[in-house]
Amino acid sequence: MEKLSKIGRYEFLAEPFHCDFSNHLFMGHLGNHLLNAADFHSNDRGYGMNYLNTVNKTWVLSRLAIEVMDMPKAYDKFFVETWVDSALRSFTSRNFKIVGESGHVYGYGKSVWAMIDLDTRHPADILAVRGGLITEYIETEYPCPIEKSSRVKLLVGATPIRSIDTYYNDVDINGHINSVKYIEHVLDLWDVAWYKQHCIKRFEIAYVAESHQGDRLHFYREGRDSDTDFNVRITKSNRDSAEVEVCRCRVQFV
Amino acid sequence: MEKLSKIGRYEFLAEPFHCDFSNHLFMGHLGNHLLNAADFHSNDRGYGMNYLNTVNKTWVLSRLAIEVMDMPKAYDKFFVETWVDSALRSFTSRNFKIVGESGHVYGYGKSVWAMIDLDTRHPADILAVRGGLITEYIETEYPCPIEKSSRVKLLVGATPIRSIDTYYNDVDINGHINSVKYIEHVLDLWDVAWYKQHCIKRFEIAYVAESHQGDRLHFYREGRDSDTDFNVRITKSNRDSAEVEVCRCRVQFV
Repeated sequence: MEKLSKIGRYEFLAEPFHCDFSNHLFMGHLGNHLLNAADFHSNDRGYGMNYLNTVNKTWVLSRLAIEVMDMPKAYDKFFVETWVDSALRSFTSRNFKIVGESGHVYGYGKSVWAMIDLDTRHPADILAVRGGLITEYIETEYPCPIEKSSRVKLLVGATPIRSIDTYYNDVDINGHINSVKYIEHVLDLWDVAWYKQHCIKRFEIAYVAESHQGDRLHFYREGRDSDTDFNVRITKSNRDSAEVEVCRCRVQFV
Repeated sequence: MEKLSKIGRYEFLAEPFHCDFSNHLFMGHLGNHLLNAADFHSNDRGYGMNYLNTVNKTWVLSRLAIEVMDMPKAYDKFFVETWVDSALRSFTSRNFKIVGESGHVYGYGKSVWAMIDLDTRHPADILAVRGGLITEYIETEYPCPIEKSSRVKLLVGATPIRSIDTYYNDVDINGHINSVKYIEHVLDLWDVAWYKQHCIKRFEIAYVAESHQGDRLHFYREGRDSDTDFNVRITKSNRDSAEVEVCRCRVQFV
């Protein structure tokens, strides 16, 4: 395999049917494009899902933070640049930059990934894959000037503001609820009237446990210091189990 | 504008996170790609949304039928070919062919579109736009060997098998529930266990009325002659109105 640059750059289009009422790309679809870019970048360099599946391992997204100044509009072409800025035994950290054709910066992203063994579901040693191949692609100089994910404090004693069922279209190749679907479900907690007055500035999500089709998801929301800054906690329940935490999020609007 | 060919051809990728548990593209995402292709094709030729919006008109999807032999798998590149095969004053009919890189035919689609005036919401005369420009691009020879949409008989007296609320992410640029979201909600009526035994052969949808965020959607399902052939009817209700029909669908599995 020819040695590629550390930073990958992938072109996307803000598809008209992926845009909200204001003609701007939905945050969930932007999240999907970041995950695609991560997937393309790691596959191109030999440590992506395509290789990992042959050795019975996979990447698991642990945290994702996206911070935007504005969002691409319908038909805008844009690029997602992505690079790994650290790789440890248990976790790697991957950054994103979202740029327009003329160099306009829409925003940035930061993510944390673990690797697991597909049989045991236990963490795998990232540095043991292909003799630590990933460490040949660490890029620490290219700026990603947003804060890391914060620790979202656990909400206790609240009542869920919404509970929903999960269906066929929520489930990904691994049989789990798709990471992007959580983003959409969380952002659906605010209605169109709210989005007419507010834009998302920053979205953070920490994935705590997996959920499966048929699980019922419960959403808890709590305001933080300002009235445009929220914590959201998602739990799951099903016939066989009590409520278990699935995700914690923070959503900041302007 | 340079005169383009009658048939447009657009490349898409079956993105990994747009695939179901079996690693095949979700039908909803395929539907979205067909709508994208229709949009690109009509914009490129001067009678698309981009032009229509400047004269206060828009296209409205009235019917869509998709029939597939199989579905693209994750990372497959494929092409959607699309062409208009008839244009009348009130309706145009547009066909689709879904082909792989090596020429493999995944399936076909047929659709019917109306044009409306954005102020009155009344039908507009398609042939009056740009002096009947669309009629210069009618292609009637290229085969699309699937049946037209059938008339789905109205279901009466049934109880809905599911009712769901609609949220921010369901709403498109026109402020209506996105056409593709109905496809997803309908296909969610069957669970993963069903899809492990059955593939979608044909999906038909007729859009009867628009719905808006906050409307509650009700799904009625009725078996047809075989146990893999179903009619689905969607209605909406909200605080101010009784139940009104929104869509009628037919889903055939194999």
